[in-house]
Parts: sequence; C-alpha cells; structure tokens
Amino acid sequence: MALWSGRFEQGVDAFTQRFGASLPIDKAMYKQDIAGSRAHANMLAAQGVIATDDAAAIGKGLEKIERSIDAGEFAFDINDEDIHMAVEKVLTADIGDAGARLHTGRSRNDQVATDARLFAKELCSELMAHNVSLRRALVAKAEEHFGTVMPGYTHMQHAQPVLFSHHMLAYFWMLTRDHVRLKAAFDAADVSPLGSAALAGTTYPLDRAMTAAELGFAGMTENSLDAVSDRDFLLDLDYACAVSMMHLSRLCEEIILWSSSEFGFITLSDKYSTGSSIMPQKKNPDFAELIRGKTGRVVGDLVGLLVTMKALPLAYNKDLQEDKGGAIDAAHTLADCLVCMDGMIETMRVNEGAMLEQAKKGFLAATDVADYLAKKGMPFRAAHEVVGNLVLLCEKRGCDLDDLALDDFKAASELFDDDIVSELDLESIVEARTTYGGTGHEAVRVQLERAHGVLERDEQLHG
Amino acid sequence: MALWSGRFEQGVDAFTQRFGASLPIDKAMYKQDIAGSRAHANMLAAQGVIATDDAAAIGKGLEKIERSIDAGEFAFDINDEDIHMAVEKVLTADIGDAGARLHTGRSRNDQVATDARLFAKELCSELMAHNVSLRRALVAKAEEHFGTVMPGYTHMQHAQPVLFSHHMLAYFWMLTRDHVRLKAAFDAADVSPLGSAALAGTTYPLDRAMTAAELGFAGMTENSLDAVSDRDFLLDLDYACAVSMMHLSRLCEEIILWSSSEFGFITLSDKYSTGSSIMPQKKNPDFAELIRGKTGRVVGDLVGLLVTMKALPLAYNKDLQEDKGGAIDAAHTLADCLVCMDGMIETMRVNEGAMLEQAKKGFLAATDVADYLAKKGMPFRAAHEVVGNLVLLCEKRGCDLDDLALDDFKAASELFDDDIVSELDLESIVEARTTYGGTGHEAVRVQLERAHGVLERDEQLHG
Amino acid sequence: MALWSGRFEQGVDAFTQRFGASLPIDKAMYKQDIAGSRAHANMLAAQGVIATDDAAAIGKGLEKIERSIDAGEFAFDINDEDIHMAVEKVLTADIGDAGARLHTGRSRNDQVATDARLFAKELCSELMAHNVSLRRALVAKAEEHFGTVMPGYTHMQHAQPVLFSHHMLAYFWMLTRDHVRLKAAFDAADVSPLGSAALAGTTYPLDRAMTAAELGFAGMTENSLDAVSDRDFLLDLDYACAVSMMHLSRLCEEIILWSSSEFGFITLSDKYSTGSSIMPQKKNPDFAELIRGKTGRVVGDLVGLLVTMKALPLAYNKDLQEDKGGAIDAAHTLADCLVCMDGMIETMRVNEGAMLEQAKKGFLAATDVADYLAKKGMPFRAAHEVVGNLVLLCEKRGCDLDDLALDDFKAASELFDDDIVSELDLESIVEARTTYGGTGHEAVRVQLERAHGVLERDEQLHG
Amino acid sequence: MALWSGRFEQGVDAFTQRFGASLPIDKAMYKQDIAGSRAHANMLAAQGVIATDDAAAIGKGLEKIERSIDAGEFAFDINDEDIHMAVEKVLTADIGDAGARLHTGRSRNDQVATDARLFAKELCSELMAHNVSLRRALVAKAEEHFGTVMPGYTHMQHAQPVLFSHHMLAYFWMLTRDHVRLKAAFDAADVSPLGSAALAGTTYPLDRAMTAAELGFAGMTENSLDAVSDRDFLLDLDYACAVSMMHLSRLCEEIILWSSSEFGFITLSDKYSTGSSIMPQKKNPDFAELIRGKTGRVVGDLVGLLVTMKALPLAYNKDLQEDKGGAIDAAHTLADCLVCMDGMIETMRVNEGAMLEQAKKGFLAATDVADYLAKKGMPFRAAHEVVGNLVLLCEKRGCDLDDLALDDFKAASELFDDDIVSELDLESIVEARTTYGGTGHEAVRVQLERAHGVLERDEQLHG
Repeated sequence: MALWSGRFEQGVDAFTQRFGASLPIDKAMYKQDIAGSRAHANMLAAQGVIATDDAAAIGKGLEKIERSIDAGEFAFDINDEDIHMAVEKVLTADIGDAGARLHTGRSRNDQVATDARLFAKELCSELMAHNVSLRRALVAKAEEHFGTVMPGYTHMQHAQPVLFSHHMLAYFWMLTRDHVRLKAAFDAADVSPLGSAALAGTTYPLDRAMTAAELGFAGMTENSLDAVSDRDFLLDLDYACAVSMMHLSRLCEEIILWSSSEFGFITLSDKYSTGSSIMPQKKNPDFAELIRGKTGRVVGDLVGLLVTMKALPLAYNKDLQEDKGGAIDAAHTLADCLVCMDGMIETMRVNEGAMLEQAKKGFLAATDVADYLAKKGMPFRAAHEVVGNLVLLCEKRGCDLDDLALDDFKAASELFDDDIVSELDLESIVEARTTYGGTGHEAVRVQLERAHGVLERDEQLHG
Repeated sequence: MALWSGRFEQGVDAFTQRFGASLPIDKAMYKQDIAGSRAHANMLAAQGVIATDDAAAIGKGLEKIERSIDAGEFAFDINDEDIHMAVEKVLTADIGDAGARLHTGRSRNDQVATDARLFAKELCSELMAHNVSLRRALVAKAEEHFGTVMPGYTHMQHAQPVLFSHHMLAYFWMLTRDHVRLKAAFDAADVSPLGSAALAGTTYPLDRAMTAAELGFAGMTENSLDAVSDRDFLLDLDYACAVSMMHLSRLCEEIILWSSSEFGFITLSDKYSTGSSIMPQKKNPDFAELIRGKTGRVVGDLVGLLVTMKALPLAYNKDLQEDKGGAIDAAHTLADCLVCMDGMIETMRVNEGAMLEQAKKGFLAATDVADYLAKKGMPFRAAHEVVGNLVLLCEKRGCDLDDLALDDFKAASELFDDDIVSELDLESIVEARTTYGGTGHEAVRVQLERAHGVLERDEQLHG
Repeated sequence: MALWSGRFEQGVDAFTQRFGASLPIDKAMYKQDIAGSRAHANMLAAQGVIATDDAAAIGKGLEKIERSIDAGEFAFDINDEDIHMAVEKVLTADIGDAGARLHTGRSRNDQVATDARLFAKELCSELMAHNVSLRRALVAKAEEHFGTVMPGYTHMQHAQPVLFSHHMLAYFWMLTRDHVRLKAAFDAADVSPLGSAALAGTTYPLDRAMTAAELGFAGMTENSLDAVSDRDFLLDLDYACAVSMMHLSRLCEEIILWSSSEFGFITLSDKYSTGSSIMPQKKNPDFAELIRGKTGRVVGDLVGLLVTMKALPLAYNKDLQEDKGGAIDAAHTLADCLVCMDGMIETMRVNEGAMLEQAKKGFLAATDVADYLAKKGMPFRAAHEVVGNLVLLCEKRGCDLDDLALDDFKAASELFDDDIVSELDLESIVEARTTYGGTGHEAVRVQLERAHGVLERDEQLHG
Repeated sequence: MALWSGRFEQGVDAFTQRFGASLPIDKAMYKQDIAGSRAHANMLAAQGVIATDDAAAIGKGLEKIERSIDAGEFAFDINDEDIHMAVEKVLTADIGDAGARLHTGRSRNDQVATDARLFAKELCSELMAHNVSLRRALVAKAEEHFGTVMPGYTHMQHAQPVLFSHHMLAYFWMLTRDHVRLKAAFDAADVSPLGSAALAGTTYPLDRAMTAAELGFAGMTENSLDAVSDRDFLLDLDYACAVSMMHLSRLCEEIILWSSSEFGFITLSDKYSTGSSIMPQKKNPDFAELIRGKTGRVVGDLVGLLVTMKALPLAYNKDLQEDKGGAIDAAHTLADCLVCMDGMIETMRVNEGAMLEQAKKGFLAATDVADYLAKKGMPFRAAHEVVGNLVLLCEKRGCDLDDLALDDFKAASELFDDDIVSELDLESIVEARTTYGGTGHEAVRVQLERAHGVLERDEQLHG
C-alpha cells in the first residue's frame, strides 16, 4: 500500500498504478529531489523540529541513495508512483524512524515544485551554454569568410548584395535574444517554494530562507497557494525553447536551400549528411531537415502545457503532473539541436564562387542606380520608376544593367552620366552600405566587435 | 558504415548518429516492417524480379527475426538508424545475397510510409475498441440509475432538472462522434504506398495491387510523390485523439466537481482515487485530473505535426521522421485514458440523494411556470418576465417557488390557477420534456435503444 | 433592459455590453437565424402551439427583416447582444404579440446551435467548390505541360527525373483528401439541434423532424444536453481548413522557390506579383508568401477552439460564444487562399528549359544504373555501392555520369556493357517508371483519367 | 498603379488587391507610422540628405494627415495596400516633390518594423496599466475580507482552511509575473530598426541614433537583415498575453464555481451577470465564462505567429504581414478581459458564511492532528497513518473529527490528550500556519505589505 493509504480500503490496480505514476519522467530529477530533502532535513534540525542525529542519518542515507542511483543500481519500482516516494521509502527502510520524520512540515506539493525549479534552472543553464557555443561558431564562420559577397534576399528574390558574414551574424543576434529568454526562464525558476507545504504553509517553525539559500535559490515564493500551483517557469522554458527552435528552423531552411543543386552555396561535411537507401548519388542535409522538423514538437510542448494549465482552480491539481514531460522534451530537443547546428556550421564549406556568381544576377544594383538619381536631385519615387523601366528593358533584351549602354541610361534620364558605371560594381555597392547595422565592410567589423562583447557578457550568465 | 555510404568518405559521429536515428521510436513498428518486406519479396518473386528461392529465404529469415524481437532477444543497434536498416542488416547477415535483393524496387521512403500506415490502422482499431467499451460503460451506468433526477446546468447554474441517465448519454454521443473520426483516420491510412519507391515509382514490373492486398489495404495511392510525403493519415489520427481527449476532459471536469464536498454527487472507487502525502483525510480524484491534464499533450501532438508539415516542399524530407513520435504518443495516451475512464465510470457510486437535494435548489421549475403561462395564451416573452419577477421575490424572501402562496402567483398574473402546484414537481417537470432527444423518461428510453443500435453498428468497424 | 431581465435589478454597463456581445460576429448568420425562426414558427403552428395567423405574421415579419439586412438598411444595435435578440426585438416591435410567441419552446442555446450548423454547412459547401476549382486548374496545368521533365527532389536534392505533370498532380491528390475532410465537416454539421431548447428539451409537442426537414438537415441530434454544447462540427471545419492550408503552404513554398533566380522554373503573372518600395527591379511572389503565412492563423484558429472547449462541463457555457469567430476566419481565409492559388496556377508560365537544364544535374540516372546492375544479377545493395563510388569519381572529376567512359564503368563492375548509355537518358528514365502511380508517361496518363473521374464525383457533393 | 510599379506591365486585380492588402489591420498604427516618417524626415534634413524646407513641408503635411485620420475624415483606399502607402500617397499629392523625397534611404521593410515596434510598446504599456489596476482590486478585496476563512483545496477536495485573502493574493502574484512578461515584451520591442532599409542598410549617411532617440527607443538593432525579419517582440507580446489569459481562466473557473448553487461563496453583481432567454430564474456568470473562453483565441494567436515564422529564410518575406493581426487581437482581448475582471472583482459580494460552513466539512483539521502526533515524537508517516484511520472511522459513523470522543482518539494512539480539542478549531488552524508565504493571519499581513510595495514598483514601469 502507498504511504498515504491510511484512509483507503482498496488499492489501485496495476493499470492505474502505471497510468498514474510519474516515476518514469521524474526520476530524472533524483539529484534535485535528494538535494531538496537534505536541505529540508538540515533546516528541520537547525529549527529543533527533528533531532540533529536524525538529520545526520537522513543526510547519510540520502547520500547512499544518490550514489546508488548514479551507479545505476537503484531498483526503481513503478509502485512508488514518483521519485519522492521512491527515495523516501528506501530511506526509511534503511534508517528507520529518522527517515519517516523527513516529511515533517513538507508535502509532495512543495517538494515537487522545488525539484522542478532546480531542474529547470539546470536545463536553462545547459541551454545557455549551448547557445553561446553556437553563437561562437557563427561568429567564427563570419570572420573566416569576411569579405565574401552573396545575394541578399527578400521574398526569396535577389534584392541587394550583402556580405556572407552579415548574413551569419543575423542569426547571431536572433540567438542572442534566445539567450535573454532562457535567462528569463532561469530567473522565473529561481525562487524557492519549499516550505509552502501542501497549499497553506505549516505549523512548524520552518526557516524557508535557510533552505532557499542552501539550495541556491535567489528568493522565496510569496504565497503558498500560488507556490504549489504555479508552473509559469516551465512555460517560460517551453516558450524560450520554442522560439529558439523557430530561429534554428530558419537557419536550417537556408542551409537546405544553399545545399541544393540550384544554389550550391555551401557543402555540408559528410559528418552532417546522409545518403539514400535507393539512390546512390544522394547526399542529403538530413540533420538540418531534422532540426527544422523538430520545431513542431517543441511548439507542441508549449501548447500542451498551456492547454493543461487552462482553467485549473487552486491549488495543486494532478493535472500538473503533466508539466515536466513536455518541458524536459523541449529542453533536450533544443540542446541536441544547438549542439548539432554548432558542428554543422563549424564544418560546412562555403562556396564563395557560387555565391558571387548568383549575386551578379537579378539587377542587384538597381537600388543604387535609383539612389544615384535621387542624390542628383530626382525625388526617390521618380527615380524608382525610372530604374524600374530600365529593368524591364533589360529583361526584354535578356541582359543585365551593366550591359546597357550609357545612351540607354541617358534615354531614361538626363541625370545619368558615365560615373554610373562604378555604381554597378557589387563590391562597391556592399561597401557603400555604411549605416550602423548595415552590410558595409566597416559596419560589419563594428558588428563583430559588438558580438564579441555580448558573448563575453553572456558567458557570465550560465548560472 | 551505413548501407547507403558508397559515395561518402566520412561517417557521422556518435552524437549525430544518435540524434538522427529513429530506431527508438520506429522499432515499435517491427511487425509492420516485417510484414511489408515479406509481401514485397513475395511479389518480387511472383513478378519474376527475384528468384522464388530468394523470396522463400527472405520469408524464413524475416520470420526468425520477428520471433527474436517478439522474444526480446533482438539486439537493436542505434547505428542502424531505423527499424528498416536494423532488420535488413541482420537478414542479410543471416541469408546472404537473397537478403541484399530484398530492397529491389523499394526505397525507405515507401517502406516507412507503408509501415506507418499499417501501424496507424492498428492504433485506430485499438482506439475504436476502447471507445466502444467506454460507451458500453456509460450506457450501463445510465441504465443502472434510470430515473435518478439531478440538476441540469447551463453556465454551471441550475437550469432545469434532468435525468442522470440523460447526462451520461450526452457523453455517449460525443464519443460516438469520436468513433467516426477514428474510423476516418483508419480509412485515411488504409491505402498502400508500397511501390512508390523513393519518389517516382520504379523501373521494375511491380504489382502494387498484390502487395496492397496481401497487407490488407483497401486501396493504393495514386501518385508516388504524394505517397512518400503524405502524412495526413497521422494528422487525422492526432486530430481524432485530440478531440476525444477534449471530450474526456469535459467528463473529467464533471467527475472532479461531482466528487467535491460541495457537490457530493458521486463517490469514486478507492481504485480510482489516491491520497495525500501530508493530509491524511484526502481522497483525490487523481485519475480524472490526470486525464484532464493529458488533454494538453495530445493537442500538443497535433500542433507539433501541423507545424512540422508546414511549407515542406515535395517529396520526402527528413522532417517527416518527426511524424510518428507524436502520433504514437497521442494514440497511447488516449488508449490509456479510455481504459482508465471505463473503469472509473463502471466503479463509481452515484449518490442519488445528493443529486435530488441539489435539484430542489435554484428554481428549476421556472421555465415550466413560464410555459404554463404561455400555454394559457401569454406571449412567452411576457411570461418569462412575470416568472423572473417571481424569482426575484423568492430570492428576497429566501424561499423557493413552491413556497409561494397561490396569491403570490395570482398577484403576478391572473392566469395562474391552483394547477400551478403540479408544475412545480421535479419528477413531472422531467417527465414532461417529451421532445425527441429530450430528458423525459420516455425520450431517454428511446435514446437508450438508439445507443444500443449504434454500438452494435460500431463494433463491426474495429478493422 | 435585455429580453431576459425579469429577475435583474441592474443592467450591465456599456463596456460589459460591448464585451459580452457576439453581434459583430454572429450577424453574419442572419439568413440562417431567420430561416431557423421561420421553420420553428411554421412547426409551432402545425403542432397547434401557436396560431396559424401568428406563424404567418412571423413569416412575413422575418422576410421584411431579411430584406432590410440584405439591403444594408437594418440598424444593428450592440445592446441586442446577438443576432437572435436583434431580429426578435425588431420583429416584436413590428408585429407585436405574435413576435413574442416565436421563442416558445426554443432557447438561444438550440437556436445558436442551429444557426451555426446551417452556416457551417454553407461554408463547407463554398470551400468544396473552391477546392474543386483549384484542382481543375492543377489538372489543366498538368495537361498543358504533359511531357515536361523536371528534377524530382527528396531532401531538396535532385533525386530522379519526374514529369512536371506528375508533380502538379501530387497536389491534386492532397487537395482531394481535403475535400474528404470538408465533406466530413459538412456531415458533422448536418444534424438539427432545433428543439433541444435550453438543455433538456421542452414540454411543447415539438416536431423536430419537421424543422430538420424544412431546414435541409440530414438528421437530428439525439441528446439535448449534447446538442447545445457540442461544437465538434466547428472543430472539424477548423481542422479541415488547417490541413488544407498546410497543403497550400507546401505548394507556395515550391512556387516561391521556383520563382527564384536560382531555380527559375516558373514566372508568375504580374497579376500575382508585387514590387518593392525601394528596389526597382523586384518582382515578388507576394501572394504565395501570404498564403504560406496565413497557414499560421488557421492552425491558430483550430488550437483556439480546442483550448476553449477543454474541460467545459455540460451543458451550454458562455465560453462557447468564442466558437464562431475562429471558424469563420479559418473558412474565409482558406476560401481566399484557394481562389488566389487557383488564379496563380492558371496564369503562371512554366519555363520548361530551366527545368530540363536542372534535371541534367545531380546524377539523376544513378538509381537506374544501380537497377541496371541489379537486373543483371548483382544484389541491389552491392549495386548501390558500386554506383555510389562512380558518383564519387564523377564529383572528383567534376563531370556527370554520362561523361564517364565505358572503361570507367567496366572498372567498377564487369557487368556493365555499352547498353549502359541508353540508361542515362532522362526521357527514358522517366518513361521507364511504369509502376501504378509512378511518373512514367503512361502511368501519368492513367492518373489524369482517375483525376477527372474523382473531380466529377466530388462536384456532386457541394451540398 | 502602385508606387512600386515601374517594372510591371499588368496590375493585380481587385480580388488580389484586397487579399494582399494589410490596410484594414495596419491602419491602427497610423500614429506610429506618421511619427516614424516625421523622425526620418527630420534626420534626413539634419544629415543634409534632403533640404530643411522639404523636411518642414513633410512635417506639416504629416500633421495634417494625422488630424484628418484622428477626425475620421481620412479616406482610406484598399488600393493603397498598407498604411505606409496610404499616408505617403496623400502626402505627395498634397506637398509634391518633398513628399516623394520622404522615402529616401528607407524601405517599407524597416518602416513597418518601426511602426510595429512602437505600436507593440504602446500595447504593452496599456496592458501593464490594466494589470496593475486589477492587482489593486485583488489587494483591496483581500483587505476588505481579511480574516474570512474558506476551505483551501487541492484536487478540488477540501484540504486545509485558508484565509480568503490568501486565496485572492495567489492571483495577485500570478499577475505580478504577467507584468514581468509584459515588461520583457516591451523591452524586446524597444529597439529601433529604422535605417535598416530593405535588408542591407543604405548608402545615405543616416543617423540611426537620432531617429531612435526622437522616437523614444532605448536602443538600435545591430543587424539590418535581422532587423527587417525579426518578429520576436510580437511573439513575446503574444506569449505574455497567452499566459496572462491562462491565469485569468483559472480565476474565472473559481468565480464560476463559487457562483454555483453548490458553492454559493460569492454573488456577482448584476452588472457582471446575464439572464437566460428561456429560463427566467437564471443569473449566469457570463463574463467569467467569456474570459475563460477567450483564453483559446489568445493561445491561438501565439501558435499562429510561431507557425508563420517557422522556416522563413532571410530577410523580409510577405508571410510577415500576418504578424500584427494576431498580436493586436491578443493584446486587445487581454486588455478587455483585465478591465472586465477588475470590475467583476470589485463588485462581487463575498458570502463569508457559506465559506465558513464549507470549511467545516472534509476533515480540514486532519493534517494538524497528524502534526500534533508528530510533535509528540511519532514519525510523521506513522502519524499520517493513524489519522487516516480516524478519518475512515468518521466516514463510517457519518461524523466529523471533532465529533469523536477522546477515547476514540486514545484508541488510535496513546499520544492523544485532551489538548487535541483545540487543534480542531478552524481559526486556530489557520492562525498556526506561520511560515513565510503561509496562510496564517500574520503571514498574510506581511504578504499584503509586500504586495503594496511591488505595486508601487510596477506602476513606475508603464513606459
């Protein structure tokens, strides 16, 4: 019979036991559970609620259990329902009454909230570290290929030439925002609920500040009802993961396109490619596709918890048991994807020639030609119209803007002069984009410096 | 090296191997994979593509592997990526060249689509069976307590009295619609893609109709590109599960409310209740809460696959590897919840007295009093107004409608006579709701008959 | 004061009136509301519940109101809360007591369910018609360019050559499944709840079959509690729309890629393209992007209703007022997208040369070379390995398979002979894929015939 | 023809014009658009890119347009596509060439990003103000009923008695976290993208810091590609709204339950209740239900944008046009719900007697009886078991714990003495929960003080 079974005449059967158990999921939190119990016992002793000897016995017993689980020797039993009961049962079997005193002034409700918060903090820290590592790889790639020109796209159409480094750095800044979100999720978790007991606090003289400090929490929850029923910190984690996966899906989309025969901008390492069971020539960017595909599951994890939380009355309800599976899945999925992307970026080969060749197509100088006219006094809207007509002329002739004769330009506007030729050079076009955050070489150099600074800042925050 | 590695110079490393492998998920489909291979080999032999001896050797080898997996003796290796490679590798090691001929005219793309469809059909069949079983339990409960009156609610306010049986049957019909959706998902899966090969069909004279028939499919896919990239049948399954979970969440909500001190309408069996680690008196409707909570994960599974599928170009992309995890989770979760609910309904005790007591509160006769006036010629809107005022009078006096004197009624409208008294009896109010599908005893008897008929029909459909 | 205000001493204020009103959304259903009231009045008269004269007056009054709304002359007042109250109030103001008798034996609960079902049926019918029209456009495009060869892709890598027609038809079959889902949503809605009243049926001798028939419903709901609280039919509509949008997003993704400089496979009509405010040369596939982007809102609509429905107890709850906004948005969005896609497909120009040129890249003959060896007796796996090595050789030499000398082939395997040359011709490779549903010319001709047959069948189903 | 039509030979037709237009949504941002244009023109003049006179003319022209829109006199034309084109067209018609110079060094891509960020900041500020106001109402209600005891629930079962004030404050802290999320969304938006132009920056000597400062932005975006394609700030807003709606849905659930006949804990003001069209006695908590129901749409808005963003390549794609509809809907919905809840809380009547009566049911003293034994030395687990058996005894006798004789207690454990009686008093039980954040009177007083402090802090942050 379960530890709570005093008032029950019948136990649950094998099916419901399995169905109701959270052990398969929450045993991942055994270290957190044991740390929480140790801190609770120490505090109970310090406050005179239990004897110092009991606390010492509990501490020793818990250490033994932790080593046993570390070593894979602990026999988990689905009938223990959850990691809390599993540990407590073995502890009491081992050390007797002292073990049975551990749960004084505590409930599984504040215990599981404590474990989940400690675990969430750890997941966030790991993710922040992986995030920084991938951003380092992006910066390194940007620096390795500094100066390489590629077509910049809007609507997947060639728009204006940009530096490949600038393109890589766009993802750096996306991921920088992800780091902010992960840190926010960390902070949301970093508040101790221990001592809230079942829902109302307890009649024991608990020192909540003491357990919070021992467990490394930055603060304490303010309301016991809220403390046992709040899972916002897991939502914040789910959300941070979902947005980061969305960002990775965008990068993957580009990696997949760039690896295609039509683009040919990059060649992925064999280590990040796979073949086909039937087509001997295939080399597929499988891992980029897989990461893109996994975006779905993480968005699903976020939605799942939002749905679960909807309309739950206070305080703890068993629905909350469904909180951790999705959050752990989201965090582990993102962690794997960050690691995989890190290696993919680091090992990919950039085909500078293919990028440059494409950058020559699609009238990428058109904006600059319009700017040329505008700088000579023509209102920009009128200049836009003139160049639009020149492009149409080129399309009909099947040529590019730099194939037009000066006369063609002059026929379109008297403002054109022979200096128009230098406006059509890709390198100069890029160079001229000097605005802060723009793609000009100097602006990108500044950006790289900022990126290094931000990375140093973020490395301090891994918790 | 992998079976597809002819053109590769480097293998993937251990991390990417694990990250890219679908084996932990798709080994659940080993029976389907083996059945598909057997059918393919038989057809290849019948068409003269491989020798009859080879087909026989393949058949025998596959049987051996199936027995080995059944017995838990098969050594799965994550380096085999997926169940298809795992089986083929061992087969070829066992029977040699014949095994290496199995993949003739086939690709993993059509192979995995075939396996997934067979597996989805099986999941749907199981869910349909569980669905029918729960509906039987609802009907049985409705019959067991025929005649019990409870308050009917709208907006969680007492509205009109209804039969408890009528309330139970409302869920019967919801679940009947779920059965329709599960059958639709079954039908969507029931089309053979085998023979579509990688994306374009093959140059071998395959007889697709033969494999479809051997595998029990009702038809064949019409377009090979679509065949290898379509996962609609899994979306249909996810969706059917999500709606059914939503329905169960509604029933759970009521079970939880009815188990509360305030309602006290039912008492769950100890087998479907648990206690508290701290509060000795607690008896919690944990399983109902858990089912309600699991609605989130299944909605998340549906969303996950929709997100994954969004904007995928043709034909197969590795993103699709993320299709099965969520669908299997959704189906298994729903299956468990249906089984659990079945037992919970069967074993719950209905407290008829508590229901009746509550039915006496909240002026449940008010609509009938208004109808009384309307039947005597007062426009219904005016009658509604008159009774609204009578209710307000009662509230101020702290009494119920049947505590009012005839004079009170007459003061409100001259149309009232002493036959108004019989309008206020709960039993009669229920009885009088004779419309088809209404809560009147006779109407509910008809409904129960229809329910039995529908159950018989649906039992034929488990595939 | 509202029509239900008998027992209230205070009205809601302006903010809550606006906040609570569904009129801005549900006035779209005025025709359905009026049709429902007309049918209800006729039935009440036929059953002797109201006088025939009253029913006639109601019929005339409703007709007048309908004409007034049709003409845009009806003064909607947010204080009427919803379309039901808006119509009834004006009706009663116009025809007096007869109007006040209309609501006899009816509640807004069954009234709104009736309106919503009638409206959902109409939305489904429209969507089915748009769906068929787009499928006609796809078939027409497939027929127009019969014989055009393009690269078939898996993992966005060139895989095997396919007919462009085959590729178009893949979307035909996706959309055919959407039609099945729309029809299922239509059928789910096609059941009359009228006569279920507030939640329990009524004491009036209603003839529910009569109103169901007059309103064109195929059947009647079986349980009044379920009837007023069921919104599955809107979920089914949302779901059908979401999956169809997902399919369109896939087609859009390809249209966008094909319109890029790198692919150049198609040229969209100016009518389905837009320019840039700054870059004069741009011609953007805006509408394809917009449709792809709108997938999100429709998935959001589906999720929204699932969340809203979760854990609602029986019977009607005001939460259900949130049902229609999302469903109407989903249906209208899909309708617009289908119409837009129809025109885009019809008017796009296919650049056959660009497709063919790309089809020559990427060793598309590799599978056939492996099949060549397999047909000469080499196990397929071994053949796959041999060809993989040949591809690696080509890559190192920077050439294609048909640039290799016969000696190169023979060095790889003695089984190669000079007939290998004909295996490398794109046209033959396509032609040889003769399996049912494959890309071979004959197989695609059969597919086109099937498509026409299915279209004829589906055109009968628009309701 | 559109302003970008130089290279086009054909315009879009009426349907696609309407379909592609964002004007119906983005005209809500006209103030932001005009402010952005004014700042851009001033900066262009300061940098010598346009003449000071032109900037002055633009400023005046924009002011005129703003007044015209304020006054509802501006004629929006769907053919202008969006608010940017609508304003610019009228401006140029009014002031000529100066107007046509406004778009120099700017693109709609950075313009719309600027507008959206300014608008998002305003939405966040409004929501923060509403959030604070509702939290004030919760604190006021908590203070008004300080001392009122109600049953505390876990699993909807009576668990331990708590102060009603404590329960109200639980929501205060939830909403405090929502404020943090809204502030994070504000900060995410508070970065100027203006000057990023189409995707790459420009060749004009723009002073981005100047426009950022004039528009009140705290900083500038670092990368132009990211700047025009980032919508994280809208996701952050959607997410903050979704979580806050989830919190409100929990409060609504309780308000609805508490308003039921079974609970009777509160009476909502008539101003926040509505009646039934058929049942004269009904008084429904419609607005609480409606808020609960609207949780779905806001979760749907969040999902919608995540789906839309998935797998978008850089930089701007038209898919992004779908960003604002959902975010505005989410923000407006939450704003309405916060305002409505504010009034509902303020005006609701608390039925203290009903709360107290329920608190007496369900053995709420059980934990304290176990603690009594534990404090006398019995291990808590053993004490739990003893009390569980006492509860079972009570249930069989149909009595409560305080109905048991001392002998009954002593029969269960020798440790019981006659001081057990005082353990059974509700008031004392509550009082004794002295842990920080617990429900004891003193602890709640401390909590109220903290709440006031936090409110003062948060009021400074409305932006």
